[in-house]
Amino acid sequence: MEQSQDKKAVVLLSGGLDSATTLAMATADGYACHAISFDYGQRHRFELTAAGAVAATGGVVDHRVVRIDLSSAGGFGHSALTDQIAVPKDRISHGGGSESIPVTYVPGRNTIFLSLALGYAEVIGAFDIFIGVNAVDYSGYPDCRPEFIEAFERMANLATATAVEKTGTYAIRAPLISMTKAEIITAGLALGVDYSLTHSCYDPAADGTSCGHCDACKLRLAGFATANATDPIKYAR
Amino acid sequence: MEQSQDKKAVVLLSGGLDSATTLAMATADGYACHAISFDYGQRHRFELTAAGAVAATGGVVDHRVVRIDLSSAGGFGHSALTDQIAVPKDRISHGGGSESIPVTYVPGRNTIFLSLALGYAEVIGAFDIFIGVNAVDYSGYPDCRPEFIEAFERMANLATATAVEKTGTYAIRAPLISMTKAEIITAGLALGVDYSLTHSCYDPAADGTSCGHCDACKLRLAGFATANATDPIKYAR
Repeated sequence: MEQSQDKKAVVLLSGGLDSATTLAMATADGYACHAISFDYGQRHRFELTAAGAVAATGGVVDHRVVRIDLSSAGGFGHSALTDQIAVPKDRISHGGGSESIPVTYVPGRNTIFLSLALGYAEVIGAFDIFIGVNAVDYSGYPDCRPEFIEAFERMANLATATAVEKTGTYAIRAPLISMTKAEIITAGLALGVDYSLTHSCYDPAADGTSCGHCDACKLRLAGFATANATDPIKYAR
Repeated sequence: MEQSQDKKAVVLLSGGLDSATTLAMATADGYACHAISFDYGQRHRFELTAAGAVAATGGVVDHRVVRIDLSSAGGFGHSALTDQIAVPKDRISHGGGSESIPVTYVPGRNTIFLSLALGYAEVIGAFDIFIGVNAVDYSGYPDCRPEFIEAFERMANLATATAVEKTGTYAIRAPLISMTKAEIITAGLALGVDYSLTHSCYDPAADGTSCGHCDACKLRLAGFATANATDPIKYAR
């Protein structure tokens, strides 16, 4: 692990298990981490509370919440994560994940989040942007795949003054991308991540209790089981 | 010119000369145009009024204004367009534009705008996104260059459910990219664009009167002069 407190990183922090682990990895790699979260009218807004708690204990330099008001543009439209569409429960588990894209897909989400993170990175002089996407135990979202991350990185290095003036090269770092959920949890526990602060459920109760049956809960629970660890959060089941 | 009212397009509309001309071109090409503007705390917020006026007379299907609140993340940071940094006046004109990137550069701006437009396009089922960027008579911004537009388009086609399910291919259309300002104005006048509704100044008076001396005003005035046309807007000079 490198130790350079001058290396700044922007870390996308949703408050979920994956982003909390990603933050721990970036910190362990010696980055001074600037966490960024997004308030986009998500149904599971409890995750913003979780993001704050993870940031507070994760040794970040700062934590910003960017508000995107898309209400005038139909929100992010047609997603169970933002609209009054039922979150699917107890679906057959995805393995490689590409059979079908579920209704919890939010159009353009990671593109929008990474774009805002890129602007923020350029402002603070960071060249590394960490995102906790995963293409193994995931829900089949197109913007979690390695080819998307690579294409975004290439675009980022053409989009910015920094890139044109050749003062640095942006890297989109997705350290979890080829890990299983169990491997992510094992790595996070070794780094001291407090998973009791994290939140994954797409359809939590008002107090944040997880449903235990949506894709996110099922992936999380299966991951803890395979890792022979106990998930410290509360479930309604 | 094609005539298919089923072809939907998202058109980025700033209220400036370029985006008004781009909207006219998209409409003339038979697209049903959905205009999108951004309220990002820009100093020249008068442009949002102009965008509304251009949209109202430009035959758009609808016009949405998306609000991005970056105040918690330092705004778009370090730009004369958003901060209390002086807008440069009477600079030497840029030709090809790559000598230096001016303080009016806004980190990540076109990347962020195109990402939000992409999400909106996917929601409404549009595959064409029009942006009025120009790499000839421009201010030297990296995110106005053809290589950026191409890289964004490539990324967009990996980012979306639409792309994965192969129901369509996104095209980022930048019809002005290799036109001079005079050519843009000549084309717009031929299409009936009412340039009295448009706004270009980076540093307008409270009533919207243009300064006549910032990069945007100088490029605009020189364009009208070369096109042998009269700029119908008011200048303070």
